[in-house]
Amino acid sequence: MYHLHIENSMKAPVFTRASPEDIDKARAAYPVLAERFKITIGCDGDIFDRAMETADFLISSVPPTDRIPLAKRLRWIQTTAAGVDTLMPLDWLPKHMMLTNNSGPHASKCEEYCLMALVALQLGVPQFVHDQAKRIWNPEFTIPVRGKRCLVIGYGDLGQAASRAAKTLGLVTIALSRTGQGEGPANKLLKIDALDDELPKADFVVVAAPLTPSTRNLLNRTRLQMLKPTAGLINVARAAIVDYAALAERLDARAMRGAILDVQSPEPLAATSPLWGTTNLMITPHISCDDPRYIALLFERWIENFARLEASQPLHNLVSREQGY
Amino acid sequence: MYHLHIENSMKAPVFTRASPEDIDKARAAYPVLAERFKITIGCDGDIFDRAMETADFLISSVPPTDRIPLAKRLRWIQTTAAGVDTLMPLDWLPKHMMLTNNSGPHASKCEEYCLMALVALQLGVPQFVHDQAKRIWNPEFTIPVRGKRCLVIGYGDLGQAASRAAKTLGLVTIALSRTGQGEGPANKLLKIDALDDELPKADFVVVAAPLTPSTRNLLNRTRLQMLKPTAGLINVARAAIVDYAALAERLDARAMRGAILDVQSPEPLAATSPLWGTTNLMITPHISCDDPRYIALLFERWIENFARLEASQPLHNLVSREQGY
Repeated sequence: MYHLHIENSMKAPVFTRASPEDIDKARAAYPVLAERFKITIGCDGDIFDRAMETADFLISSVPPTDRIPLAKRLRWIQTTAAGVDTLMPLDWLPKHMMLTNNSGPHASKCEEYCLMALVALQLGVPQFVHDQAKRIWNPEFTIPVRGKRCLVIGYGDLGQAASRAAKTLGLVTIALSRTGQGEGPANKLLKIDALDDELPKADFVVVAAPLTPSTRNLLNRTRLQMLKPTAGLINVARAAIVDYAALAERLDARAMRGAILDVQSPEPLAATSPLWGTTNLMITPHISCDDPRYIALLFERWIENFARLEASQPLHNLVSREQGY
Repeated sequence: MYHLHIENSMKAPVFTRASPEDIDKARAAYPVLAERFKITIGCDGDIFDRAMETADFLISSVPPTDRIPLAKRLRWIQTTAAGVDTLMPLDWLPKHMMLTNNSGPHASKCEEYCLMALVALQLGVPQFVHDQAKRIWNPEFTIPVRGKRCLVIGYGDLGQAASRAAKTLGLVTIALSRTGQGEGPANKLLKIDALDDELPKADFVVVAAPLTPSTRNLLNRTRLQMLKPTAGLINVARAAIVDYAALAERLDARAMRGAILDVQSPEPLAATSPLWGTTNLMITPHISCDDPRYIALLFERWIENFARLEASQPLHNLVSREQGY
């Protein structure tokens, strides 16, 4: 029998926590889980050290990195989050252990959110949001979005979802990634080095990259100034990739068309933040990519990865120590 | 030479008014207009009676119905609006004259708006709009919209656009029309008689019908009560088709998921209206379907219809005296 320990966190959203009922459902769905695994569930460290005496596998939103090296048999850690920026650098991770992220189950919702947000920016919805609060009827008539140009930063799970949304809307879609290599829905995939060439041409920019030392503050004040005054920005990834203070200044000065931000740092966004009232800025509370069927989707992918492990195939979503995602 | 008179109205949105520059562009684009037409432009009746001495054709947002019967040679009136409910009944229209509406150029924007609004309802954006005004971060995590059921009321230009949007999102799309006959993007097209059967099954309802005596107050209090508590409503057509007071009551009681309303009666919506603050209600200021390239799109279709007239073919968008659209 293997031992799988699941470590919940009360700081993480409720749907990311596995309940005993979730485990029962997973055991029913996957006989391998029922037959070959002992499963324990802990929360915020209550039984963590004891579990690590015997656990082979760990699923955790934020693994307690200081205690991982003490685990005796642990060989694979699965996070419940797609972004692992808070776990970097990986110097806490013993060489014989593997870390996988939860990139994947976020794609369907992200694609739909980007469809919504791209059209909303084109229509001027962020302004209507502020107008509604002020009870102001102030129509603005825009042409359809079709044919405009969308720049997607990042081309993993979220970036490809954003690119599919942009293509569905008939946008010319340019995606940027670290390597500039790969297949996918974008019209063109370029290396991130093309960023400064592409920013001045974009009608929309969708931030969908992992937060790493290379992407932190990527859209800084200087780069935001390269955008057209008619450009709109969407962030479904991590707040620290964009200089929000500089963005807010440009929005308030009407030097940009608008922005729709789903991510903040820290979250929840403080009631005192000036972003709530920034001109042409619409805020959603980090809901763009998370699906409440989270644990079921996680197990679906974990079981698939376990089969790969047994077949000595490389795991999907393996986090690279060098690239940080 | 024919005489085409264009009557602008200062009450109509600015992009629906034809300027001398618009006419120059249309003449350049369509030689038949330059070669065979004298064109006059009036505004709010300034030269209307004189123009009607010789005009063969009239393009007008709201034709002055009391003075039309005095026109000597007039045979075809084209409205700049898609909905002609304010011109009903047509007893002012002499038997030898034809009236055409401007259904058609609204489709592209309407489709995009419906994409935005369907996803926004699924995500709970109407609530986030109110939360943003109150500086509240209150996430709600929903599953993707794909696979849900959308009921589209009306299957003209707007109804088909709404159906295309719903299909793009992977929704099971049921459309209702007066006849229940015809081709188009919906999975199923039924007669409007099926309304009471379909309302309780719908996850989303999109109102996209013309306002006529048969559709006025169609979604009355009783019918709104047939909707699921998780259902969302979108109105891109005319406010009077839905009992907004009853809708607001249900939204405030959280007996419905949400609504996105682009149309009001009267417009602009008064600052004192309780709708601005209604729970889970998002308001946009009648911008869902209007494209600022309006006059160019109107001429494109008018020229095509003029060719049909010369070929003795029935005009597109001919308003029926019986059906009222």
